[in-house]
Amino acid sequence: MNAIQSYIKQHKERFINELIDLLKIPSISADSTYRNDVLKTAEAIKKSLEKAGCDAVEICTTDGYPIVYGEKTIGKHLPTVLIYGHYDVQPPDPLDLWKSPPFEPITKATEKHPDGAIFARGACDDKGQLYMHVKALEFMTATNQIPCNVKFMIEGEEEVGSANLATFVKNNHKKLANDVILISDTGMIANDVPSITTGLRGLSYVEVEVTGPNRDLHSGLYGGAVANPINILTKMIASLHDENNHITVPGFYDKVEELSKEERDEMAKAPFNLENYKNALDIDAVYGEKGFTTNERNSIRPTLDVNGIWGGYIGEGAKTVIPSKAFAKISMRLVPHQDWDEVTQLFKTHFESIAPKGVKVKVTPHHGGQGYVTPIDSVGYRAASKAYETTFGKTPIPQRSGGSIPIVALFEKELKSKTILMGFGLDSDAIHSPNEHFGIWNYLKGIETIPWFYKYFTEMFE
Amino acid sequence: MNAIQSYIKQHKERFINELIDLLKIPSISADSTYRNDVLKTAEAIKKSLEKAGCDAVEICTTDGYPIVYGEKTIGKHLPTVLIYGHYDVQPPDPLDLWKSPPFEPITKATEKHPDGAIFARGACDDKGQLYMHVKALEFMTATNQIPCNVKFMIEGEEEVGSANLATFVKNNHKKLANDVILISDTGMIANDVPSITTGLRGLSYVEVEVTGPNRDLHSGLYGGAVANPINILTKMIASLHDENNHITVPGFYDKVEELSKEERDEMAKAPFNLENYKNALDIDAVYGEKGFTTNERNSIRPTLDVNGIWGGYIGEGAKTVIPSKAFAKISMRLVPHQDWDEVTQLFKTHFESIAPKGVKVKVTPHHGGQGYVTPIDSVGYRAASKAYETTFGKTPIPQRSGGSIPIVALFEKELKSKTILMGFGLDSDAIHSPNEHFGIWNYLKGIETIPWFYKYFTEMFE
Repeated sequence: MNAIQSYIKQHKERFINELIDLLKIPSISADSTYRNDVLKTAEAIKKSLEKAGCDAVEICTTDGYPIVYGEKTIGKHLPTVLIYGHYDVQPPDPLDLWKSPPFEPITKATEKHPDGAIFARGACDDKGQLYMHVKALEFMTATNQIPCNVKFMIEGEEEVGSANLATFVKNNHKKLANDVILISDTGMIANDVPSITTGLRGLSYVEVEVTGPNRDLHSGLYGGAVANPINILTKMIASLHDENNHITVPGFYDKVEELSKEERDEMAKAPFNLENYKNALDIDAVYGEKGFTTNERNSIRPTLDVNGIWGGYIGEGAKTVIPSKAFAKISMRLVPHQDWDEVTQLFKTHFESIAPKGVKVKVTPHHGGQGYVTPIDSVGYRAASKAYETTFGKTPIPQRSGGSIPIVALFEKELKSKTILMGFGLDSDAIHSPNEHFGIWNYLKGIETIPWFYKYFTEMFE
Repeated sequence: MNAIQSYIKQHKERFINELIDLLKIPSISADSTYRNDVLKTAEAIKKSLEKAGCDAVEICTTDGYPIVYGEKTIGKHLPTVLIYGHYDVQPPDPLDLWKSPPFEPITKATEKHPDGAIFARGACDDKGQLYMHVKALEFMTATNQIPCNVKFMIEGEEEVGSANLATFVKNNHKKLANDVILISDTGMIANDVPSITTGLRGLSYVEVEVTGPNRDLHSGLYGGAVANPINILTKMIASLHDENNHITVPGFYDKVEELSKEERDEMAKAPFNLENYKNALDIDAVYGEKGFTTNERNSIRPTLDVNGIWGGYIGEGAKTVIPSKAFAKISMRLVPHQDWDEVTQLFKTHFESIAPKGVKVKVTPHHGGQGYVTPIDSVGYRAASKAYETTFGKTPIPQRSGGSIPIVALFEKELKSKTILMGFGLDSDAIHSPNEHFGIWNYLKGIETIPWFYKYFTEMFE
């Protein structure tokens, strides 16, 4: 990959400005108010792929938001890399915690990003990391160094469960045929500690509704005499963890993969400082499942978290009301071998069973996906590892991530190929949080590293 | 009180329309957005008192919303009745459950109100019941039948704790001097079962805030490893009741008045049908403190209810976030002898003490007030009882209410006079709920009954 560094240096400003333009479009897939912006983003991605050198780019309609598909064919005898990414973003709220508007990108230096970082929703997850691949393609085509065939599949519903992508993949085995899938939608340990994600957690996301009386009631006239849906909901949620923070849903742990002592010892070698971790979050103690370390709790163990709760009067001042209904959004992170459909059903059955008389309970599954583990001896992993060695000068550490990319397990099932997760973000980049950002150094390092993966993968491929 | 029925019949339409005009003003004291409407309502009350025959009416400014004061003096030797009411209303939300807009009053018949009811926020609590007194005064002055002196004290902050009324009362003993205080801000058992409220519960209203990490976090990367403020809040709230639904705050029950078997047997005589109660609320079971009946649970026993809860993502769709903060509004209904300041402190101390490591907890007292009991052998009670007998043809039943009028205990302490609670609403009138209404029959019956109270009270008074 001759002259890649000089190419990046020469086009650096343009690479940054093109990403900033993309970040200005509020492509929030969870909120239908932004429908036109999501569609506009798909168009922008299509144009960028055409400019970067794809032969054929199309916007494939689905029952939801479209999938942008593009390809660059070099030769039938050569291997094919399928790039996956998503152009939709998480809702930005709470807005009042953003130091600058989420869709008006600004660049400023931080302690971890002395060369500057771009602050905007989607900067890291996933517009920034996705766009690294577009620019890597541009370099390879512009300098006639593209060693293999490339396909792009960029969706707009990752943040809401990828329901239509699943259908698209099932119906397009031939079109999507590939030898390895490459995704940059994860992070690495630190800029001087490169890592490759070898495991992802699965996800089950549900919404629960507790209904008491058929109308809001005066808490003076009815207080103490009828089941208050909020009080009941808190009791039900509280009962989902025992005193050791084990999840109490019957059968929940049945298929959980138990790691060997060796594997856990290996994990424990990853650099981690508990004091720094607590200080960064301004907490006086960590909290979680008894018998596991922080790094184990957020990677190899399943979890149950309430992501949202609401009911009754939440406005200014006071209102003495017993509401008719209370609601919560609850997600469970699952580990390999746990089936998300099965866990969702276990939760539903259990949650409905613990409802006391006097209330009605409804559990609505939102979406979910299976966990995933990738072996470190595959051609793809070895090619990725060598690419990092080339550009970082260090062998990357294999790392299990606590996050979920629900679609990855489906890719393997449908397309029979392994996925390699080359992520260049940092945990501190605040994805899904206010002030999400992506280091400019990381952005450019990704653009530099990706072409080496193509080169090594093609060389190692039989 | 000659010809009162014919006077009401003659002016019925005007009485209804005047109330409807008053109900059109959204005087929501809890929400500062409606500040001008609250002030406008005070002006409207002032005008209505002047029209009804008060000699002097003034708008007394406070640190919050003003108090409308009016008086009609007949003679120094005659007793003085002080009328208290409030012109502010509860917030109307949830708006989507209203069948007609809360501030666009409509009249329609219901099962319990075959002669029609006025639907609007404040129809019963308290604009409708307050306006009965204005119209009763109009009748007495228009027909020269007013038997004693009358004073009106109408505030605009009852729904938010009457903080400034307390100061006003403390500073105006002479101006407010009276022989009995009359309030219509409660209900009666049924239109054919008149009752007088002899007890009110006290109130302690607090807001709690649980803070975990210093920013919203991605539930995949941090889930299971840090304390989730929502999960913690649900655990803390759930722990406030034990398996018998006793409140677990240490010292909470220390001063609770235990009623004798005789008193409880007497209470049990009030007509009550559990099936009808459950059907009216569409619940399959009642729920509450073990060892007490429904009527006891909502009148002679203290309670703890969550009136509002919120945290995390509560918008459309899904967001996998661990929020930095979670909140709840919690109110406790107190019985006579429980001191609200003391209980608030007990709650604060306990709630902060049960916070696990990993979160910070803040408890902010909102407002509160003491409970109240009035004897049934006082002149005021006997005069009220006789007034009901005259207009309903039945002796009213003394009844403890679960509601709170925090200021009543203070009236007795500061003004050294008893309060008589002549309420004409029904529990089914949905005060504090969507579709609040007030029966036209009840409205007119109140106007008819009140003058008889003046007459009998003056006759019985020594």
